[in-house]
Order: sequence, then C-alpha cells, then structure tokens
Amino acid sequence: MAARAGVSKSLVSLVLRGDPGVSPARRGAVDRAIAELGYQPNRVAQVLGARRSGTVGVLLNDLRNPWFVDLLDGVTATLDTLGFSPVLIDSATLRRVGGSPVEQLLKQQVDGIIVVGTTEDGEQLRRAAAVVPVVLSGTYEPADLGPGVEVDVVVNDDVDGAAAATRHCVELGHSRITHLQGPGRVGDLRAQGYRDAMAAAGLAALTVPGGMSEESGYAAARRVLAGAPRPTAIVAYNDLAAIGALSAAHDLALTVPEQVSIVGYDNTYLAKIRHLSLTSVENGTLAIGVHAARFLVERIGGKTPARRVHQVPASLVVRRTTSRPGV
Amino acid sequence: MAARAGVSKSLVSLVLRGDPGVSPARRGAVDRAIAELGYQPNRVAQVLGARRSGTVGVLLNDLRNPWFVDLLDGVTATLDTLGFSPVLIDSATLRRVGGSPVEQLLKQQVDGIIVVGTTEDGEQLRRAAAVVPVVLSGTYEPADLGPGVEVDVVVNDDVDGAAAATRHCVELGHSRITHLQGPGRVGDLRAQGYRDAMAAAGLAALTVPGGMSEESGYAAARRVLAGAPRPTAIVAYNDLAAIGALSAAHDLALTVPEQVSIVGYDNTYLAKIRHLSLTSVENGTLAIGVHAARFLVERIGGKTPARRVHQVPASLVVRRTTSRPGV
Repeated sequence: MAARAGVSKSLVSLVLRGDPGVSPARRGAVDRAIAELGYQPNRVAQVLGARRSGTVGVLLNDLRNPWFVDLLDGVTATLDTLGFSPVLIDSATLRRVGGSPVEQLLKQQVDGIIVVGTTEDGEQLRRAAAVVPVVLSGTYEPADLGPGVEVDVVVNDDVDGAAAATRHCVELGHSRITHLQGPGRVGDLRAQGYRDAMAAAGLAALTVPGGMSEESGYAAARRVLAGAPRPTAIVAYNDLAAIGALSAAHDLALTVPEQVSIVGYDNTYLAKIRHLSLTSVENGTLAIGVHAARFLVERIGGKTPARRVHQVPASLVVRRTTSRPGV
Repeated sequence: MAARAGVSKSLVSLVLRGDPGVSPARRGAVDRAIAELGYQPNRVAQVLGARRSGTVGVLLNDLRNPWFVDLLDGVTATLDTLGFSPVLIDSATLRRVGGSPVEQLLKQQVDGIIVVGTTEDGEQLRRAAAVVPVVLSGTYEPADLGPGVEVDVVVNDDVDGAAAATRHCVELGHSRITHLQGPGRVGDLRAQGYRDAMAAAGLAALTVPGGMSEESGYAAARRVLAGAPRPTAIVAYNDLAAIGALSAAHDLALTVPEQVSIVGYDNTYLAKIRHLSLTSVENGTLAIGVHAARFLVERIGGKTPARRVHQVPASLVVRRTTSRPGV
C-alpha cells in the first residue's frame, strides 16, 4: 500500500498517527490510497510488519455501576505509556442480547484482556486465556482459567476496607450495625472485615444479603430498618446498595445520619455528589488499573511469572451519612 | 488453518462462535490449532472469506455522565439483530492521556462509527468519515464531516423537551424560572425550548451558563440561588447539572421542592435514584440507539441516502424535585 501511494512506509505511519508535520499534499496521497484500497490502519500495521495489534481488551461488567471509571483511567494512562490502547466491551449489554463479550474481544485481535469486576463470562474467559494473557481487576473470579494458566489478580484490601468502615461506626458509638452483603469472593471478604471489626469490639454481627444494585440495597435495607430492634448503622457492600439504603431510610421517615448512619464502598462519584455525600471506602481503583495494565503488558511481552495477587490499600472517606447515634 | 486443524471451515466457525454442539475432541483440535498458530478469530474470519469485520465502533464522550447507557442498549440490540457487534471507546479517558480515540477505532477495523454525544474529536472524525460511515447520536456535531460526506443525525426533540420542562414549572405556578444552559447545538436547542415556553406564558426568560457536569451546575445554581430576586424554579441542561443545583440548594439551606423546584434532562438512572428522585426529561435514548444503529448499518451496506436528521419524542417524568412554589 505504501508503494501504491507513492510514499514511504514511515510516512504512512505518520499520517495514520495524525502527525501534524505531514504536508497536506502528501497526506492527501496517503488518504486517497487508504480510501481507494479500503485499507484500515490495523491491516496497514500488518503490512508494515507490526507483530502485535497494540490493543488491550477491557471487559466491563456493568456500565450502570460507575465504580470502574477511575480504574479505567489508570488502565488507559498506563497502557498509553507502554504503547498500548484499550478497547472496551460492556459485558452486561452484550449478554442481554445473547452476544459473547469475550469472543468479541478476541475478534478485535486484542493482545490481552483485563477483566474489570465480577463477571458471568467465566467459561468464555477460560477459552480466551488459552490464547491471550488475562488479568483480573477488582475481582478474584474466575479463580481458575485452565491448567497451567497463570492469571494475576489486582484488588483492594476488601477485608481491611470493610473493617475500617465498621470500626468508624463503632467509634461513633453504634452497637447495632448491620452489614448488607454482596456477591462473590469480594462480598465474602468485605463481610469478613465487618465481622472481624464487630468481634474486636465485642459486638454481635448481623449480615443480610443486599446484592450490588440500588434496588437490591433498597429492598434489603427496608426490611432491616422496618424490623426490631432497628440497627442504628448500615455498612453496605457498595455505594449503589448504600444509596438504596439511603432511599429506604427516607421512605421509612428515618433521618440520615441522625437515626441511621450509612456507609458505602468504592467511593464512586455518586458518593461525592454533594446531595448524597455518602461516607464510603476508597478502594484505590486508579492504582488497581495501573497495576493491572502493568501486569498484563508484562505477560504480553512474554514474561510468565506465577500467579500474582496484588492488593492496594483501602481507606475510609467520611462524609455526611455517618454520625453518632441518636444525634 | 482449517486444513492444519484437520477440520472443516464450518467447524472452525462453529467453535469460534462457541457452539455447544461441537464435541470436546473436535473443539480441542481447533483450539490447539488456534493456540499454536497464534490465530485470532478476526484473522480466521478473513481466512474464511468474511468481507467485513462485523464490528461497529461506538465513540462515547464521557463515561462519567451516564446518559448514554440506555442508548447503548438500543445500539447493541439492533446491531446484534443485523449481525454486528459494538466495541466502545471512551473518548474522554483516551484524550486525557493524549490518545486518539477515532484512530483507535479505525485500528480496530470497524465497519462504521456511532458518535454518542458532543465530542471534541471533530477533526479526527472528518478523517475517519472518508473511510467508514459515521452516524451522530444525541448530538448534531461535528456538523460537517467533509465534502460529499453524508452523516445521519439521531437526536431527541430538545426544543420540545425543554419546553415541556419549563411549561411544567409554569403550570405549577412558578414565574421566576432560570435555565442553566449547556454547551453546543443541543444546549442552544434546549435554551430555545425554555425561552419559547417562557414567552408563551408571558414570562421573562433568564439563562445562565451551567455546563454539563455536577460541578458546573453546582457553581451556576449557587450564584443564581444566592442572588435576588431568587428564582423559585431551575430548568437544568442535564441531570448532572440538576444534581449540582440540588446540592447548591442544600448548601444554601433551601428546601427542594418547597423553596426551589429543579428539573433535569436525560432521565438517567441518577434521576431515578429514590434519594434524588429528580423530575427530568426522558429523551428516548433507547430509540435513538436503535435508529442510529439502523442508519449506520444501511450505510455500511452501501446505501448512500442524503443526510437524515431523525428526531425521537421527548417527554417529562415528574418526580419529587418539583412542586408549587412556596408549598
């Protein structure tokens, strides 16, 4: 194709990268050749001899839960530094129409896959992991991606984060603190952190299933807050469930934080909305994204270390939804 | 590659599609060949003679504003019916690291591009539009994608939607209604709808720049609500700006809706969060996604109609942030 345009391969490359130093005439020659031949840059890259696509697939589990947004910033910035670009697939949307998110990523010739959050695509990921490296971020699942396949895991310290959220309530003077438990291994670890902190304070732990959506958090909190004795604090699995709990308190005419304190997890932009102003656990998603991208690119580059589990620290951000009980 | 695996091309195709009717042994043979050769399905599709990648690029302008989520459902479902799959690029994230969102989509060999929302990638889109069809959804910009390039536009009726939001406030008895204006042509159209409705009611219109984020909406509403005479209602450009206005009212100790009514636009899941319960304009994003995908696939199929501008209706959803003034 470079020959056809009457220009050098490096010029083609400059034009494709949008380099401003190329004269309009020479750019025009390349553009015409591209249009005429129906060439697209990836095919051109192959012609130019690139060994890899330079693309990393990012499998998002649900665009409706914004916890991954900062993680994606970390992934994108790190990939860019290392010469790769991300393409995103929204797993939930594709699955609703019966599509195959992982297969779609492989069709895109990605050099590797970063799984973001707990996914239902375990079986497909096992097939993919035989072909390209896979890194899990913000999730431990799927735990096994096939014989001999080493998969790195980058997560925050869920036990420590949930324990910090619970200790915060204990230190404010709460004793009836209920945990809305979420799904999967991450849900188990956050529940463990909650139970550890309750036990350390000599308090009885009570966990109820609360899902990971606003709706499920609302339903669970409504049941809990309508019961007797009513808890004075709720530690939720994530921000969405916590926001559901805020609404449940509102509908039961309970004031927050005066009559019930509520803590979320993930420190999403929802928690930061002043009108919600949710106390939440910062889970270091930016750092998770950075490490996940680094690990993946190492494996794409041919390194094959044993499975790594990297934890970034969690920390509590106190806002307006927590206070002393009965204030 | 089919020959190497000792299997038929149609079997390769079945395995790549994840068909459950393939025996483990035959699947294994194909999988081994794929792994051994480093083949990825897209290359295989080329070997099998597919003329197109079957992939459509979706250029999202900002994952932090969730208005596009339903639109993406419409796009994905329609593409699936027509035999295409979406790949997503988050323009804002890539631009923050100096990346080129449109170039990245072309590298993915997409057959066409759906632009979602107002973008800063106009110049790149002009280059892309010379190679693949482009459809704009939820935005009119960039208006011109090059000589002879016909670009379809699918939007909601922004004038009518903003007029409905304003009339709702008028009918509740408000007379001091301020509009927080957003950017671009969509911002202009929503401001026009607001002014039309104010004029029809014989009321003086007042618009102030309010941006499209929670922060900008907060700052604008804070200035407006601290002024005198204070408006009793705010019609915001979008839900995020409206949520910023909610927070501004809260910080100024003004109750919503008693002392100030607030209306958003886009009817995002944020508006539906019970604790926010924001009156908002439903902008038909699901239908926008369906039409945008249809238009694009028609053009990918070789049809070249003149530019089409398709409007879907807007409608008001009344929730808890609006009431009669001074109630």
